[in-house]
Amino acid sequence: MIIHLKSNVNAEKAAQLAEKAKAVCFKRDNYFVLVTSSKVRALDAELEPHADAFYVTSSDIQLAGTEYMPQKRSFVLGKHPIGGEHKNTVMIAGPCSVESEEQIEQSAQLLKKLDISVLRAGCFKPRTSPYTFQGLGEEGLKLLAKMREKYGLKVITEVRDASHVDMVIDYTDIIQIGAKAMYDHGILRRCGKADKPVLLKRGFGTTLQEFVQCAEFVMSGGNENVALCERGIRTFETKTRFTLDLCGVAYLKEYTNLPVILDPSHAMGYRYGVADLTRACLAMGVDGLLIETHPNPMVAQSDAEQQLTHEQFTEMFHSLQPIAQAIGRKVV
Amino acid sequence: MIIHLKSNVNAEKAAQLAEKAKAVCFKRDNYFVLVTSSKVRALDAELEPHADAFYVTSSDIQLAGTEYMPQKRSFVLGKHPIGGEHKNTVMIAGPCSVESEEQIEQSAQLLKKLDISVLRAGCFKPRTSPYTFQGLGEEGLKLLAKMREKYGLKVITEVRDASHVDMVIDYTDIIQIGAKAMYDHGILRRCGKADKPVLLKRGFGTTLQEFVQCAEFVMSGGNENVALCERGIRTFETKTRFTLDLCGVAYLKEYTNLPVILDPSHAMGYRYGVADLTRACLAMGVDGLLIETHPNPMVAQSDAEQQLTHEQFTEMFHSLQPIAQAIGRKVV
Amino acid sequence: MIIHLKSNVNAEKAAQLAEKAKAVCFKRDNYFVLVTSSKVRALDAELEPHADAFYVTSSDIQLAGTEYMPQKRSFVLGKHPIGGEHKNTVMIAGPCSVESEEQIEQSAQLLKKLDISVLRAGCFKPRTSPYTFQGLGEEGLKLLAKMREKYGLKVITEVRDASHVDMVIDYTDIIQIGAKAMYDHGILRRCGKADKPVLLKRGFGTTLQEFVQCAEFVMSGGNENVALCERGIRTFETKTRFTLDLCGVAYLKEYTNLPVILDPSHAMGYRYGVADLTRACLAMGVDGLLIETHPNPMVAQSDAEQQLTHEQFTEMFHSLQPIAQAIGRKVV
Amino acid sequence: MIIHLKSNVNAEKAAQLAEKAKAVCFKRDNYFVLVTSSKVRALDAELEPHADAFYVTSSDIQLAGTEYMPQKRSFVLGKHPIGGEHKNTVMIAGPCSVESEEQIEQSAQLLKKLDISVLRAGCFKPRTSPYTFQGLGEEGLKLLAKMREKYGLKVITEVRDASHVDMVIDYTDIIQIGAKAMYDHGILRRCGKADKPVLLKRGFGTTLQEFVQCAEFVMSGGNENVALCERGIRTFETKTRFTLDLCGVAYLKEYTNLPVILDPSHAMGYRYGVADLTRACLAMGVDGLLIETHPNPMVAQSDAEQQLTHEQFTEMFHSLQPIAQAIGRKVV
Repeated sequence: MIIHLKSNVNAEKAAQLAEKAKAVCFKRDNYFVLVTSSKVRALDAELEPHADAFYVTSSDIQLAGTEYMPQKRSFVLGKHPIGGEHKNTVMIAGPCSVESEEQIEQSAQLLKKLDISVLRAGCFKPRTSPYTFQGLGEEGLKLLAKMREKYGLKVITEVRDASHVDMVIDYTDIIQIGAKAMYDHGILRRCGKADKPVLLKRGFGTTLQEFVQCAEFVMSGGNENVALCERGIRTFETKTRFTLDLCGVAYLKEYTNLPVILDPSHAMGYRYGVADLTRACLAMGVDGLLIETHPNPMVAQSDAEQQLTHEQFTEMFHSLQPIAQAIGRKVV
Repeated sequence: MIIHLKSNVNAEKAAQLAEKAKAVCFKRDNYFVLVTSSKVRALDAELEPHADAFYVTSSDIQLAGTEYMPQKRSFVLGKHPIGGEHKNTVMIAGPCSVESEEQIEQSAQLLKKLDISVLRAGCFKPRTSPYTFQGLGEEGLKLLAKMREKYGLKVITEVRDASHVDMVIDYTDIIQIGAKAMYDHGILRRCGKADKPVLLKRGFGTTLQEFVQCAEFVMSGGNENVALCERGIRTFETKTRFTLDLCGVAYLKEYTNLPVILDPSHAMGYRYGVADLTRACLAMGVDGLLIETHPNPMVAQSDAEQQLTHEQFTEMFHSLQPIAQAIGRKVV
Repeated sequence: MIIHLKSNVNAEKAAQLAEKAKAVCFKRDNYFVLVTSSKVRALDAELEPHADAFYVTSSDIQLAGTEYMPQKRSFVLGKHPIGGEHKNTVMIAGPCSVESEEQIEQSAQLLKKLDISVLRAGCFKPRTSPYTFQGLGEEGLKLLAKMREKYGLKVITEVRDASHVDMVIDYTDIIQIGAKAMYDHGILRRCGKADKPVLLKRGFGTTLQEFVQCAEFVMSGGNENVALCERGIRTFETKTRFTLDLCGVAYLKEYTNLPVILDPSHAMGYRYGVADLTRACLAMGVDGLLIETHPNPMVAQSDAEQQLTHEQFTEMFHSLQPIAQAIGRKVV
Repeated sequence: MIIHLKSNVNAEKAAQLAEKAKAVCFKRDNYFVLVTSSKVRALDAELEPHADAFYVTSSDIQLAGTEYMPQKRSFVLGKHPIGGEHKNTVMIAGPCSVESEEQIEQSAQLLKKLDISVLRAGCFKPRTSPYTFQGLGEEGLKLLAKMREKYGLKVITEVRDASHVDMVIDYTDIIQIGAKAMYDHGILRRCGKADKPVLLKRGFGTTLQEFVQCAEFVMSGGNENVALCERGIRTFETKTRFTLDLCGVAYLKEYTNLPVILDPSHAMGYRYGVADLTRACLAMGVDGLLIETHPNPMVAQSDAEQQLTHEQFTEMFHSLQPIAQAIGRKVV
């Protein structure tokens, strides 16, 4: 159950009520919000005089659910508002990893040329082997910050684990929580206290229910600006790297109030399918696209097979606006 | 290995050579084609004088593969050519099952009104419980034939098992092999001798490799007019009925020469997501779409949850042509 | 709902009542049984005077479920009774395919030596490629029959599709329905009229619910002697051929009244793991084991990687009885 | 490639060589070990004079692989040596979560009574909803330490994320890395510097290759005492909580040198199947078993469905030793 407390309830009183109700408590605008287990179906007598409104939900998809808030939430992602009544689909592009200043600057220049506003690149790579490139760490974050200054871009980069979450939050404009870190309470709880939007990627072994509930960790910490990112799930099919779950996207659009962003690059794992899939993702009517492109994919230190060349990306990018128009949206 | 025999090799000789080479043999135009295991990498000395050309392939995706034939195959599906240089995306629509003359006639009238040429509906339903509606059988086939006559439509219906494959082939214009029957040698081999195009659905537990190899059973029987239909695979996600595998579609487009058709209705399993998914499927650039729509889904005897109403279908259908145009295709 | 009609209801009357109730009808001993959809929760007034007893079930797992019949069903599999109060675990062994008389005779001799009573081998192979060995067909069935005569063995072999189901039923002692044919109504319905026990393998993409419901097709045809065989499901893990689902076996033991048989050979796909897995399967307390062993696996025409040599099989076989004893069972 | 440096190479020199070779470096006994990418196939000229031995491996399963070290590794888990030539199967038991002193003391007493040496219980629970019980945190760790003192037990508890990894390492005897934290570099790298054995659980969406590579993160940090724990993977089957992958266990036993521990409780998710599965796991011949049991499962704050009562656990426990004997092992 979600309870909106009256605006005259102060922090101390809200905390008391929360403890009594075994509820999570956070402040929104000028009032406190309590969230109990969804199994609580009736408002407690003690809470009643302090409550402005309360909402019963059928599962622990609470703040993120359309049962609670039917209209799509809206916030600014990079430079453009998404969700709500906005019909923007934000293009987010760049290489898998920051590898060098020269490389990331070429990426920044590509975005500038195409009037794309959000640059993506990883600094802390969640590799599955300790014997491969692990990312440039803080050095990479500094290079991203430099590109932001020099080219007027917004940047998004990934937190790998709780040991460096503060550092990433400091440097980035949008916090990315990767598929492998999606259940990380250390990260989720810290992001709940951050004042930057969060892009939460679905774990490749994660159900939609669990995925949205992980967003609830961030939202119930007080940061409700979360976008859900589908990037492929692991199935028996291994000809492609993962299986992009667009049926799941239809579910997220129907049953949650959060913006949805799609990452076809990781799902496919191979350059050849990315353009077709990007167009399909756009036609689903989503709020953002996350595409990997690298100045020279052949020498990329991670995900070499799936990153588009700048030429391939540019050609694909130019094919998108007509599809967006056909469904009443705009790629920004 | 695929071997094109010289046109002066007669049937008897071809059969002899095939037996010797442990090859499958079929006639194409005025010459015979032999197909051995893909493990055969060099042309046998005895075959050499009789061979016009031979093709080595890296797996048993042979006749269907771009290694053998890089250009997309083309044939008429219903009334329109697909594949090859054609940019047609054929809409195939209708209810899950033929339930009554009144019902199927309403479906036929909807198609006529929207100028859609291929009517789908099942007569032999591969239900998973013996205690539910099993389809009208031959009575249903007769009703489909009646609609073909009365409304000038083409029809497609499913073979459930080998016991009635001849009957279905007699009545239908396009033979559908369903997901659960995809490995059925009795059906596959019989369809290899049929002179009607085959729509082969991917089993929901079937890898892409196995899927295309099942098409090889039909093709190596002599009927090369096979279209591959992705309809969702079974994964850990159960909020939706299946998971539509568009990454797999990208693979099929890249590595096979067969037309590809998509069935988002069965993948999704719920009406609410079908329109978005249909648009995404179309944006992938495929040769056909298979959509379930029923005059009154609430009383449908099978798949009641996923069939669009005629109003929903009509609205969705009218949104498709602009997307098709954006990618240089036409919905027919 | 399952309804036991009174024994004075004759065939004609039973058929009338069945049609009215949209029920499947079969004869058991001296009375008829009707099975309607499980959604029927109350006995129809018209049926009431003719019913001896009726059973409401929570899903279409009806005849096979413990809701209807809590005690394990029992019948003779080969030479030994399984299920019920019997604590027998029947060993079924032999090569993947009948390849030649010499080969299958060596297998028969191995079984004779180890006092194993049921010989397995395939004649109609459900291969996924048309360009590989497809089985010896009827010639193979004849060789199996010969081994039965000569060595006093019982034999089990697989039906691939409905086109040869009668032939297989004629020759075999136990009818095997393979994983790929598990949904084949042509086979299932024909087996429902056969008087030989059926070993039904779970499809590798099949849920437990669907699996047991396929057994209902056979049982509701009148042949209630069905054993369920788990042989591995398809998952994201590809280091092994399939994933043996012993959690699923625990479910089948708890919620169904059918004997359970395990096939670790196909699940594993590699010789090295088969012995450990066979011991684990036995320790689950099941009614049978199906193990592939070949006189010379290196030259086997199918499943060469997973068949044990006769030496490996013999060594493994001798390790089983102590485990069986530890859990109060006996390997026969 | 794994390189054993000569014992006269000091830390500074080893670090230099490691940097040059892009290798991970750790000290074992009196010499340093370098591990480069497995793609390095030939020993560098510069390394040659300093190398005692080197080992080429076919994938990044290096320190953990039988290619490098064919014999099973051995270390003490709790009070008993596992792996190597030891035939011990260590029973680890206790509730899902520490809930109160009274509850955990009842668990400790049960273990004492049955002469079981390792008590398991979680303090930082990786719940998927923020609105449920999250564990007692440090308070729970203190209760576990108290039980250790009072009952002479060893304890194992789980690290949820990197924010409390030091605290858990301080309190526990065996460090558990849970399925959802398996990719967490912050945890893995910290555990590589710990001097306590690590039980690494397989992520439910994790391939065997990735799983073992995660163990490599710990091992290449210098802590080679890692046990691999299979606890069920996520598949399409939802009648049971997960699918226990015993085929995968056969693979781990064949291709890695690490002890293997099995957790059937989480795989099954329901009490009714745990006893059968535990016996099957034991019959696989593994080094440990991890079983959930709770003094009163009905009121458990997490995993209420799958925890055995103390009576059920005791009965099951007494059935194990005969099976262990049958395969030449001992449950300790």
